[in-house]
Amino acid sequence: MDRSIDSVADTAKPVAKDMSHHYSDLAKARKPSSMKMFYKFFAIPGIANFAGGLPNAKFFPFDTLEAQSAHPHRWRPTPNYPGVDAAAETSSDNSPTAASHVVVPHAADTADLDKKIDLTTALQYGQASGYPPLFSYIRQFTRECLHPNVPYEGGPDVALTVGSTDGFSKVLELFVNTWVEGKNDIRERPGMLAEVFIYPSILNQAHPRGIQVCPVEMDDEGMAPYGPGGLEDVLANWDDAKGKRPHLLYTVSMGHNPTSGILSLQRRRELYEICSKYDVIIVEDEPYWYLQFPSAAIKEAQARNKPIPEYKAANTLPNKSGYPFLDSLVPSFLNIDVDGRVIRLDTFSKTVAPGCRLGWVTSTPAICERIVRISESGTQQPSGFVQSIIAENIMGPQPEAAAAFASRSRRDQATFTGWKTEGWVRWLAGLRGEYERRMNSMCSLLEEHAYQLKQSTPVRDADSDWGVITKTKLYEFEWPRGGMFLWVKVHFEEHPLFQAAGSQGNVIDGPALSTALMTFLTHKPYLVLVSPGMMFSTSPQIAVERGWAYFRLCFAAETDEKNSACSTQFGQGVQKFWRIKKVAELEALLEEAGALEANEIEELTNLGWMGC
Amino acid sequence: MDRSIDSVADTAKPVAKDMSHHYSDLAKARKPSSMKMFYKFFAIPGIANFAGGLPNAKFFPFDTLEAQSAHPHRWRPTPNYPGVDAAAETSSDNSPTAASHVVVPHAADTADLDKKIDLTTALQYGQASGYPPLFSYIRQFTRECLHPNVPYEGGPDVALTVGSTDGFSKVLELFVNTWVEGKNDIRERPGMLAEVFIYPSILNQAHPRGIQVCPVEMDDEGMAPYGPGGLEDVLANWDDAKGKRPHLLYTVSMGHNPTSGILSLQRRRELYEICSKYDVIIVEDEPYWYLQFPSAAIKEAQARNKPIPEYKAANTLPNKSGYPFLDSLVPSFLNIDVDGRVIRLDTFSKTVAPGCRLGWVTSTPAICERIVRISESGTQQPSGFVQSIIAENIMGPQPEAAAAFASRSRRDQATFTGWKTEGWVRWLAGLRGEYERRMNSMCSLLEEHAYQLKQSTPVRDADSDWGVITKTKLYEFEWPRGGMFLWVKVHFEEHPLFQAAGSQGNVIDGPALSTALMTFLTHKPYLVLVSPGMMFSTSPQIAVERGWAYFRLCFAAETDEKNSACSTQFGQGVQKFWRIKKVAELEALLEEAGALEANEIEELTNLGWMGC
Repeated sequence: MDRSIDSVADTAKPVAKDMSHHYSDLAKARKPSSMKMFYKFFAIPGIANFAGGLPNAKFFPFDTLEAQSAHPHRWRPTPNYPGVDAAAETSSDNSPTAASHVVVPHAADTADLDKKIDLTTALQYGQASGYPPLFSYIRQFTRECLHPNVPYEGGPDVALTVGSTDGFSKVLELFVNTWVEGKNDIRERPGMLAEVFIYPSILNQAHPRGIQVCPVEMDDEGMAPYGPGGLEDVLANWDDAKGKRPHLLYTVSMGHNPTSGILSLQRRRELYEICSKYDVIIVEDEPYWYLQFPSAAIKEAQARNKPIPEYKAANTLPNKSGYPFLDSLVPSFLNIDVDGRVIRLDTFSKTVAPGCRLGWVTSTPAICERIVRISESGTQQPSGFVQSIIAENIMGPQPEAAAAFASRSRRDQATFTGWKTEGWVRWLAGLRGEYERRMNSMCSLLEEHAYQLKQSTPVRDADSDWGVITKTKLYEFEWPRGGMFLWVKVHFEEHPLFQAAGSQGNVIDGPALSTALMTFLTHKPYLVLVSPGMMFSTSPQIAVERGWAYFRLCFAAETDEKNSACSTQFGQGVQKFWRIKKVAELEALLEEAGALEANEIEELTNLGWMGC
Repeated sequence: MDRSIDSVADTAKPVAKDMSHHYSDLAKARKPSSMKMFYKFFAIPGIANFAGGLPNAKFFPFDTLEAQSAHPHRWRPTPNYPGVDAAAETSSDNSPTAASHVVVPHAADTADLDKKIDLTTALQYGQASGYPPLFSYIRQFTRECLHPNVPYEGGPDVALTVGSTDGFSKVLELFVNTWVEGKNDIRERPGMLAEVFIYPSILNQAHPRGIQVCPVEMDDEGMAPYGPGGLEDVLANWDDAKGKRPHLLYTVSMGHNPTSGILSLQRRRELYEICSKYDVIIVEDEPYWYLQFPSAAIKEAQARNKPIPEYKAANTLPNKSGYPFLDSLVPSFLNIDVDGRVIRLDTFSKTVAPGCRLGWVTSTPAICERIVRISESGTQQPSGFVQSIIAENIMGPQPEAAAAFASRSRRDQATFTGWKTEGWVRWLAGLRGEYERRMNSMCSLLEEHAYQLKQSTPVRDADSDWGVITKTKLYEFEWPRGGMFLWVKVHFEEHPLFQAAGSQGNVIDGPALSTALMTFLTHKPYLVLVSPGMMFSTSPQIAVERGWAYFRLCFAAETDEKNSACSTQFGQGVQKFWRIKKVAELEALLEEAGALEANEIEELTNLGWMGC
């Protein structure tokens, strides 16, 4: 990480555009925490600071913060280019159980705030942009490793958040005036574009602010730029009478939740051009960016006896990070953001743990500065406990840590040298390996039960022992190109009881069958809980029209063993569900589901699902 | 902590009133994260959860989280009732350097979520109300130890925050619609009551939302209920043409920042009655609640040769916590809150460390539930790193922690049994002891320089070697009854150059002298930086009229040695400043101060001062 993008002739780059016309009233009114006039006094050598309201670090009850930290090679990576780069698959350097002891000392003896990692600074009041050592590391990693091609002058800045839910909440505060039906003019109603299927927590954040979330059509890759219901279509044919033309676009473009697609660079260019034309801010929420699975397309083809697709590099941009794993991933919208209209949300929730409550926003310096103002009035900085232990784990060790432990016998202390960027990238590659194998395992097991085979000859007598086998597709899916989810479309219209008469004069429609199957799968011996697709529908209309046909299956949470066993059980359960012949059986399942009945679709789509 | 307030006949208690008419539009529109319909499925034994979007805890890179934790007796307490309770002062059980090793294991083997403290749960997605073990501990401590007299049925609930700045931000989101000048009707403008001097970060949070912050007169104790400019006066004579009558009252009632008063129980009753009459929500922000200094009044009297005040118990309410230290403190507004209109903000910032970013809100269950909804859409839970290490430190140890360490030699591990509530209360008492001694030290040193002694006989000749000594009071202050600050009033009107003609045709007024002295004190040999009182003025008018006469001195941040040395230097600096005879000297100081000039008072009062 010794190459600086600042070395590129910056003067040739376009200046990021001013986006302040999009700011909310509240955001416009927030003033920066202007301590500048006091800085000159703070800097006087030996001055006693009776001015601030800081407690004395001597009274913090912790003398150290420590952790047993995994070796960055703990998990086995998968190839970046299957068939081209096989080295990783056979790599034998993983050491599953090894751990090192990481120590954040009480006081580190350095004046360089970007390198000083200790409890005296980490547990004191700090900067809302982030703990200086971690902030500077993340900023450098972001600029040089993740997004080395950002086209605007000076490049992007970062601001730490307490996770991406917080990050998105701050983005909404920055760009949206709360709109209230019956109180505010409909022409003032804020709008936000998103794919037809969406991470439901986003709706929970947007709806209370009065935001109209406008679904945009998508395919396996992600949002569609053109065609009916595509981005251009929605914006060009906007009806002002139903609200303001949306100035925000929300997307998960790498391992989309729930559909698991990855947006190609070419598609990004097309969408970006439209956003630029209509002056739309792009919010790119990427918790799964490092979970891009190049083997998925190949293994899917093999499983289905189709031709193996040709290898195509996902990233054809000129500047590289120098880390083959990172350079193999599809690049962020930031790398084509000539206007400065992209805000990316990153999080440590999936790379370290959700309980970190630590993430960051990447955007233009002007937008990051506004995010910091919002943090100053709310969350302030992320917790110093997580900031310091992660900083120490990656950037450590501090010489003081060893000294603090001189008196304690530690066989693992001496060997720890900090993960550094190499270790951090290797850790990410290892995680990708684990999740990619789980994804492949679930998919191959689901393939085995996707069809119902039925002998269609009605009568077997002694004279004819042959029969015609019919094959009915019960469900279909793409092998996930990224993320943590498998998005299964179930062909309920093929179920024998589809549109059958119910006992109340109703018909057994798609939503009813969907709810019945979901409930059925939780029974023994299947014992699988899946998420109904209605929950991920961007509008109630989408839930009613097509959301019911889908289930989302997460291959991340369970053990390897359970992941495999229950993938099989899912397939077996669907097969068995198809053999239900009595409406009464379905109605019993629907009764059991209770609140999950079809007439509560709207509530279902408004569900919060923390940590989806 | 074995006594439950639930054992009190709850049916005899009043039901908390519904405060939802005060909720903001945004808060009203927020829905709870309704996962309830899924709970029955989660509870099926052996079910595979393919529904949630959780990463696998196996992939968290930390196998343990550990810390060297202080013995709870590290710091020496002061008596709860000086002259009555002398035991604490002579207590010899403090052990300044001892530390225990605290370990949060990767997985604890208990099914009781309120006792399970491990990384598998703490670092996973969790509940916005807080990490179950810590949440349940804080809830019990709050209900049984801090506020055992809450009068409404069922008692209060708690919701964890990422610190009190976050807590107050959520309170504002819950109760305030953003108001924009020139866009919204003036009669809709929200208002908030506060003392004439205020923690400036509160203004930074309130002003951008369009809140009119209305100053209420105060005395040494705190907010005045009656009299001109008192609470009743402000509310009774409210002019609707300048905005809505305030429905919020903000106060720091225990160690007020910056004036350091403590509101008596009697005064609380008077203020509460007025708030009840005018339907005002009371927000009580108490970072310093445990820093109540019973020796201050006695030592102040001794220093000034005045009669020692009689001992008066601060808490005369019937229910006790059983911990003499806690029971000696003045009780919160919550303990007289028959209506359910009090919201209290607590934080670990001063009891553990600001970098925790951990605190909690205490109020009625209905209000706490709304705070949790807001958290779900933003911060989610506080960081699992800080939640688990604090839970383990107080509630530990987990038996698994010892097991995790069986293979490592640890002389300090075996002895750790967790602080428990007794240790936690003892830790707080020890901190109070340290800060109380620092306060007394600063005050006694400031007493020494408060007067300028001058021989008023103009000519001394051989025949008369006597003279008249005149005593001019340069500054005055109350010895702080609580908190971290000393609030000094400087008698600039006694300065020889007060109202002198400046070189620009101006006069050297109070604000100018104040700024000049602040700058002068940063010079050698004084080297003291103090906070100007203008910063803490609730309105620009108060800054201009009287704020300039005050400085706030923090006795918490510096070392004991520097605290003493620089208190003396402050006194000497003021003495020396009084000997300045030339306007030019003052003008040089003003020029040096630059941005701190009097004409920038408004900017000064809008200053953010993170961690004041």
